[in-house]
Amino acid sequence: MIVKTYTDVPAEKVAMPGAESVTIRWLLGKDSPAPNFYLRLFEVQPGGHSPYHTHPSEHEIFILEGRGQINAKGSRHAVAAGSFALVEPNEEHQFENSGDTVLKFLCLVPKE
Amino acid sequence: MIVKTYTDVPAEKVAMPGAESVTIRWLLGKDSPAPNFYLRLFEVQPGGHSPYHTHPSEHEIFILEGRGQINAKGSRHAVAAGSFALVEPNEEHQFENSGDTVLKFLCLVPKE
Repeated sequence: MIVKTYTDVPAEKVAMPGAESVTIRWLLGKDSPAPNFYLRLFEVQPGGHSPYHTHPSEHEIFILEGRGQINAKGSRHAVAAGSFALVEPNEEHQFENSGDTVLKFLCLVPKE
Repeated sequence: MIVKTYTDVPAEKVAMPGAESVTIRWLLGKDSPAPNFYLRLFEVQPGGHSPYHTHPSEHEIFILEGRGQINAKGSRHAVAAGSFALVEPNEEHQFENSGDTVLKFLCLVPKE
């Protein structure tokens, strides 16, 4: 059993083109014994956003703190603490901080 | 894309023997298009706990609110908002509210 606090895991800058003021913490990733899916925590500063992009694996999202929007093809979805989302495989998406505090959310992905 | 708030999903009493004052919300379950793993939110009232049990699939846990402990074989792990855990396959475990407010946590499991 692994039990930790998310701040035990360092926040790494997301350097992907199109990312602005975003960090990721790999809470349970490929260096852990997690057998099927990975738990990551993102922090997006005010004015920041993830890349608008797509990929074959899904995301399961839970918003912990802050306010933002998920931008999809032809739609925008407002989110705040307590919102959750499923981004289906190959769906275009972007997470954007639309508030004035840090937008903090969990984003889970299947093991590759 | 699915975007909702967790309170949109009804809380169901966990009726399993050994569970006391626990509810579950299946945020993304088998009735959703989630392809690989499921997102559930548990609420444990003060004095309540989940069953002490084991099963072949893992749990990935993130504590949202409250204080509690994860009881395992020969050990107890204190948790609070911001704690996360991996309960590995076949590990004995129990979630217990040791505080005086609701213990709220996410618990993800692989698709069966």
